[in-house]
Amino acid sequence: MASVSQKIDGLLAKQSFIRKMFEEGNRLRAIHGADKVFDFSLGNPNLEPPSALQDALADLVTHPQLGMHGYMSNAGYPDVRAAVAAYLSEEQRVALTGDYVVMTVGAGGALNVVFKTVLDPGDEVITPAPYFAEYNFYVDNHGGTCLHVPATPDFDLDIDAIASAITARTRVVLINSPNNPTGRVYGKETLAALANLLREKSQEMGRTIYLLSDEPYRKITYGGVEVPPVLSAYESSLLVTSYSKDLSLAGERIGYVAVNPATPEAEKLMNGLIFANRVLGFVNAPALMQKAVARVQGMGVDITPYQRNRDLLYKELTEAGFTVPHPDGAFYLFPKSPLEDDVAFVAEMAESLVLVVPGSGFGGPGYFRIAYCVSPQTVDGALPAFRAVGKKYFG
Amino acid sequence: MASVSQKIDGLLAKQSFIRKMFEEGNRLRAIHGADKVFDFSLGNPNLEPPSALQDALADLVTHPQLGMHGYMSNAGYPDVRAAVAAYLSEEQRVALTGDYVVMTVGAGGALNVVFKTVLDPGDEVITPAPYFAEYNFYVDNHGGTCLHVPATPDFDLDIDAIASAITARTRVVLINSPNNPTGRVYGKETLAALANLLREKSQEMGRTIYLLSDEPYRKITYGGVEVPPVLSAYESSLLVTSYSKDLSLAGERIGYVAVNPATPEAEKLMNGLIFANRVLGFVNAPALMQKAVARVQGMGVDITPYQRNRDLLYKELTEAGFTVPHPDGAFYLFPKSPLEDDVAFVAEMAESLVLVVPGSGFGGPGYFRIAYCVSPQTVDGALPAFRAVGKKYFG
Repeated sequence: MASVSQKIDGLLAKQSFIRKMFEEGNRLRAIHGADKVFDFSLGNPNLEPPSALQDALADLVTHPQLGMHGYMSNAGYPDVRAAVAAYLSEEQRVALTGDYVVMTVGAGGALNVVFKTVLDPGDEVITPAPYFAEYNFYVDNHGGTCLHVPATPDFDLDIDAIASAITARTRVVLINSPNNPTGRVYGKETLAALANLLREKSQEMGRTIYLLSDEPYRKITYGGVEVPPVLSAYESSLLVTSYSKDLSLAGERIGYVAVNPATPEAEKLMNGLIFANRVLGFVNAPALMQKAVARVQGMGVDITPYQRNRDLLYKELTEAGFTVPHPDGAFYLFPKSPLEDDVAFVAEMAESLVLVVPGSGFGGPGYFRIAYCVSPQTVDGALPAFRAVGKKYFG
Repeated sequence: MASVSQKIDGLLAKQSFIRKMFEEGNRLRAIHGADKVFDFSLGNPNLEPPSALQDALADLVTHPQLGMHGYMSNAGYPDVRAAVAAYLSEEQRVALTGDYVVMTVGAGGALNVVFKTVLDPGDEVITPAPYFAEYNFYVDNHGGTCLHVPATPDFDLDIDAIASAITARTRVVLINSPNNPTGRVYGKETLAALANLLREKSQEMGRTIYLLSDEPYRKITYGGVEVPPVLSAYESSLLVTSYSKDLSLAGERIGYVAVNPATPEAEKLMNGLIFANRVLGFVNAPALMQKAVARVQGMGVDITPYQRNRDLLYKELTEAGFTVPHPDGAFYLFPKSPLEDDVAFVAEMAESLVLVVPGSGFGGPGYFRIAYCVSPQTVDGALPAFRAVGKKYFG
């Protein structure tokens, strides 16, 4: 007798490829030793949280306050929401109070909360491809459909493509900047053009089209590149983020959603988000981590090691003949696969004990993703294999 | 232009009563002072976490291990799952390994993960009334329907009522023991009768009907009452719980789901649960709290203060003329309302600055809930009002 629903059964069958990759990695590590396998498959930061965060945690748990581990408002602790809002007001150049912030179980939790709140059955969410594959599930969880429109060849937003995809069913345009998997940061002019389009289309369709910006990599940019503030660019904007990457707290599930006060019916939207946070079973963001991150607003890990990895990999791959769009942020490279079949190429790399992920998994077939949030040893150890494969395919 | 979906709009309108109650409480506190308002409305433990848990937390954050705040398997840390399984094997008298445990974002997260995994569209979940009202949302989130069957007059499971409610669409029977809001603990014979029924009906319907037991109050029982182990009682059983109540960690969102290894296709069910934990945006249970609770398996707060509150309130309310089913566990009393209209009665109590919740909110109209996880001062302060209202209605 079937133990899971038909839908989950189908999804489990489909994701067997990723599980196979994961098992293949474990098999290789068992045979060759963990230090001989160069794993670039996961976006799990290898840097430790900054000492300021560690100190805040230590102070909180060694001087416990009464009730600090108990329930609070489903939106989060008022002082934490206020601290986030104060920081965001500067970052986004829009005056915010804590009333416009809901603390969440990471950005994944925040995205589910947003979709639960705003999607009517059959509503569409448009996002550029390549994209973070979990978006499809998050939208589908709440009865929506995730539509992918191609990015430009250098992975910028293609405003015309987005314009053509918008219909009366469009509820959200979802962007991710710096982007996973491409590392692309969308510039101020691009955002302004998108905002103009969404204003015009909201008017035309007679419903608010939200711009939802997923920004967990915001603080991880290189060469002075800044991520322009989405709340300044467009009234009906929501910002979702987490402290997973910039504070290396991915396992602690702490993030938030912030709402532009200028959006129509903002108060009802906030009530909806808080309600959804509750009924989806999140209830509230983890209490202790709320208090900890409130004390280190604006801080982040020292990204020098990521920069070193990026610079070295970009240089070496380019020299080896790979086509690599230059990434301004996050800790991903998304080079063109020498084989049209990126899955076959990834399997070939695994034979050289280098684990990367096929672009197909991100709606970007013909490419592959390198997550360089790894030790310098992992990068250095993989270079010979990248050089060898470059020689084979590019001469 | 509408900011939220039609469904959320409707739900927000409906829950305005609870918000009004909450605002009324704040209004009364502002007028009369917090110490003059006796608030029994929330199931938020007033006891602090045990010192063993506080010590574990302090040790973990002052001796941080590399990567301890990062992603781990979506099912949780292997050592944490193993520790939970070892404890559960004794508690449930069923041999379990960590492979049958998924660490979750509290019991609310766990319930959503289970429903996402097992419910096909239109599937039904049967639960006895009165019930924890969030169940309705949790089931609806995943396309199911929550059916309520009446409990017996003393709030035990009514096996015949459950039998009559089972159809080909039934996927889960959900129980909560000790019960919120009644405090009822289901005995061994009752569980055995339910198990027999579910075996027979699973056979008849040709599909597994799961027994899902939500047990966050398991360690909070009085007078030596024990909660019988559900995994020993029925093959296709799942146990969901959290450390919210027994370790007073409600805000930290840490719990788990455990699966009976004897259920058909148990491995696929586990894969489904782990997958659902990921795609619902929980991703994994908070990392630090996983490590902390693993070190205090089997421990709980000293419930002497709850027992004192229960004994005193039960005695005083009974003496005042109230009909109060005797509760064996949790920290709730569920007395009969002197008025048929429990909402009106609750409003009357609020005039005496005593805040309780109408039974209607739990599918138990004509009753009201007292959450006695409060200070002795709150209980003592409320007694005169309970006595006065008893005198008024019962003479």
